[in-house]
Amino acid sequence: MPVSRIAVGRPEEATQPDVLKAALAEFISTLIFVFAGEGSGMAFNKLTNDGATTPAGLIAAAVAHAFALFVAVSVGANISGGHVNPAVTFGAFVGGNISLIRGILYWIAQLLGSVVACLLLKFTTGGLTTAAFSLSAGVSVWNAFVFEIVMTFGLVYTVYATAVDPKKGSLGTIAPIAIGFIVGANILAGGAFDGASMNPAVSFGPAVVSWTWDNHWVYWAGPLIGGGLAGLIYEFLFINQTYEQLPATDY
Amino acid sequence: MPVSRIAVGRPEEATQPDVLKAALAEFISTLIFVFAGEGSGMAFNKLTNDGATTPAGLIAAAVAHAFALFVAVSVGANISGGHVNPAVTFGAFVGGNISLIRGILYWIAQLLGSVVACLLLKFTTGGLTTAAFSLSAGVSVWNAFVFEIVMTFGLVYTVYATAVDPKKGSLGTIAPIAIGFIVGANILAGGAFDGASMNPAVSFGPAVVSWTWDNHWVYWAGPLIGGGLAGLIYEFLFINQTYEQLPATDY
Amino acid sequence: MPVSRIAVGRPEEATQPDVLKAALAEFISTLIFVFAGEGSGMAFNKLTNDGATTPAGLIAAAVAHAFALFVAVSVGANISGGHVNPAVTFGAFVGGNISLIRGILYWIAQLLGSVVACLLLKFTTGGLTTAAFSLSAGVSVWNAFVFEIVMTFGLVYTVYATAVDPKKGSLGTIAPIAIGFIVGANILAGGAFDGASMNPAVSFGPAVVSWTWDNHWVYWAGPLIGGGLAGLIYEFLFINQTYEQLPATDY
Amino acid sequence: MPVSRIAVGRPEEATQPDVLKAALAEFISTLIFVFAGEGSGMAFNKLTNDGATTPAGLIAAAVAHAFALFVAVSVGANISGGHVNPAVTFGAFVGGNISLIRGILYWIAQLLGSVVACLLLKFTTGGLTTAAFSLSAGVSVWNAFVFEIVMTFGLVYTVYATAVDPKKGSLGTIAPIAIGFIVGANILAGGAFDGASMNPAVSFGPAVVSWTWDNHWVYWAGPLIGGGLAGLIYEFLFINQTYEQLPATDY
Repeated sequence: MPVSRIAVGRPEEATQPDVLKAALAEFISTLIFVFAGEGSGMAFNKLTNDGATTPAGLIAAAVAHAFALFVAVSVGANISGGHVNPAVTFGAFVGGNISLIRGILYWIAQLLGSVVACLLLKFTTGGLTTAAFSLSAGVSVWNAFVFEIVMTFGLVYTVYATAVDPKKGSLGTIAPIAIGFIVGANILAGGAFDGASMNPAVSFGPAVVSWTWDNHWVYWAGPLIGGGLAGLIYEFLFINQTYEQLPATDY
Repeated sequence: MPVSRIAVGRPEEATQPDVLKAALAEFISTLIFVFAGEGSGMAFNKLTNDGATTPAGLIAAAVAHAFALFVAVSVGANISGGHVNPAVTFGAFVGGNISLIRGILYWIAQLLGSVVACLLLKFTTGGLTTAAFSLSAGVSVWNAFVFEIVMTFGLVYTVYATAVDPKKGSLGTIAPIAIGFIVGANILAGGAFDGASMNPAVSFGPAVVSWTWDNHWVYWAGPLIGGGLAGLIYEFLFINQTYEQLPATDY
Repeated sequence: MPVSRIAVGRPEEATQPDVLKAALAEFISTLIFVFAGEGSGMAFNKLTNDGATTPAGLIAAAVAHAFALFVAVSVGANISGGHVNPAVTFGAFVGGNISLIRGILYWIAQLLGSVVACLLLKFTTGGLTTAAFSLSAGVSVWNAFVFEIVMTFGLVYTVYATAVDPKKGSLGTIAPIAIGFIVGANILAGGAFDGASMNPAVSFGPAVVSWTWDNHWVYWAGPLIGGGLAGLIYEFLFINQTYEQLPATDY
Repeated sequence: MPVSRIAVGRPEEATQPDVLKAALAEFISTLIFVFAGEGSGMAFNKLTNDGATTPAGLIAAAVAHAFALFVAVSVGANISGGHVNPAVTFGAFVGGNISLIRGILYWIAQLLGSVVACLLLKFTTGGLTTAAFSLSAGVSVWNAFVFEIVMTFGLVYTVYATAVDPKKGSLGTIAPIAIGFIVGANILAGGAFDGASMNPAVSFGPAVVSWTWDNHWVYWAGPLIGGGLAGLIYEFLFINQTYEQLPATDY
């Protein structure tokens, strides 16, 4: 297993950065991402006096998350790899692309970044609720569980294909856009059913600040299973095969 | 006819990947694409209790398909070429850029990926209908037929100009964005008239799972004719001419 | 005056393509662009039974034009330079970047492409009106005239900075995105006042097919003056200055 | 302190351009940006007869600002560095990346560009009000102050990570997209609460032309503090550290 492979999205020529500095970059990136993403939901609630979600509200959430995640991945890419998501870090771990210690530090930084973003949102919005993720009427916990698995599989598969795969080539330039846009696209589908988290940190911050834990496990189990599956499948089907065909050249 | 030209979007230096692995990549890419695209339509139906399409609903469909197709093409680019569409595969075939066997395997993988995506959507949405493509009131089957031809011509022409043409240069980097965005733009026009498929796999999955076959042939014949025309025109007008002027150098 | 400078967006290493082939590429690019752009407006009219423009309608028009113009510029870039707009061709001409003969052929191709796109739209939509550009209530012809000058100045300035300027560097990769997005952004402002054309071909096709010529001159005079000003200012202030400082090296 | 570092976004190989020419580029870029951004708000007011902001209105503002800022940064990048924002210029100054004299000239150019854009908008819209930024009901001046600090921190952090950091690599290509999109994402959150300026020039033009100065200081103090903090933190934590590890090589 290629345990020494470079972290997601970090260029080969970079020196090994201080792991604490990388965790700080994850903290800031996640804060920026959650502030805009969760904030867009609170803006919808403000403008509609907590009205029911509309197609326009779903578009606003999708665009806010897509744009902000693209930025959060970009600004972290050269320092921490720009994971911004415990499921991405887990997917990188099961594929052998990040060490356990570094992974745990990333998780802590990501969760803290989300909580601080939500605390800032609570203050700056004049005390509005940081609405937690929840299931729509007619959607069972198992529906949502599989929804999160499928959507996060797509996200982490995208991370692997565009940022980890040594064959990625010029895709590396647009990897952060692809990562942001698959989340935006999935929100336009899943947002109406279970909120479309794909990211335990994104669900954790609002849950802590609003202290709402209904079905919270779904937003951990689904993304971790989907992300882990994507890491395993991509690593062993599409990357390792290359190792056998092409004896190590530039990596 | 340059039958040995590399597949769409695959860099020249890549070795010939296992064709089954490429088909698997087409399956996964199409699944990711259809899950978000068809899912966005089901989300609109959920939020509006099956209301009539509105401009906001059309925007949601356009953005979901544009973002998800961009991602699906990107993640498949280095393994299968990222066709994600039987009409693109057909256009590549008539231009001499893919073999018959590989093309048939791609078709099977794309159709399967769409069906599996729709089955997953049926489960995760708690049993909602995977609405099939259909004609709006006042739109005849011949109107829709020509609509699909024109739109798919634009799509496959884009694939050729940005991903196949040896002169593409730095456009190769943004090819997946262009391919996703032409579909998004065309949905904002055609979506109100015939659903704007441009892709037989996209229409096939919902038709199978909801077992709705009214005018289904339009969503095969239109895209295949439009895509085939684009492949022939681009290949013989804009690529072959280059062969005569520039004796083979790097391809 | 650097009359031999390469056409907008064409890489230096390309051989001089047949001018008729370049005109054909302009025809196809403009057809693709106008089909999606004008079609998005007709879709809005279809969905709302010719209702008044709403913010959602403006967003749909902006996204359709932004995405489709990005694609139209990309697919034409390596063949014709991807002008897709008589005002861009005129701006390239006054800056000395395209010959008179080639410019005239481009104009004819662009106007024809727009007319054919509108004829196709009239058929495929089941006979709907290809609505011509017009002034909103409270907007005088001089307001619209200046609106078109300012917006098209921004568009052609963008073309020069990202696709013509020899110092453009890696911006060349994202030039088509910038060109598409400035048009999208300007539509979100000007679309509510005069339709935000910035492109005589875009206004010409719908005017011909619906035979509506009220204030049509505004949509020629405004873009040509704005585009010409941008070409002159950018060429003589930002490019020629470079010539004096840096004796010709790579161009 | 690396006072001789090149300006934000300017490639290393460029010669030192005339500072007045750079200021002119800032003037034009800011004019283009504010014309589309502020114009999109006036379009919403036109279409809704000055109705209350809706989610669709927020999306229109976000997309207009995101697209137009991306363009404004791109077209200025190789001449002035594409700041288009006094807070970005201030952040570049506190990090030691621009001289005081050049910074002051940039501020003047940016403020003038915004005022001229608003004067043009007042004329071209037939005399509509250039609405100034203001606080929504239930949002205190301190809420808005912190909102602007957090959002502008994210913006200037993005500028540093993608355009200033010598380790930026291929991110440089997509830096203008990231800069535009973080502003778009933040507008989807903050737009409903305080207008989401993140840019004193963006607030200054409408305030001058409509002569509205309520709480105007918030839109200077917030962005300057947030931008300055981002410049200091990024420069001293993520860039200077690199200096210690890697003795100066290519800069």
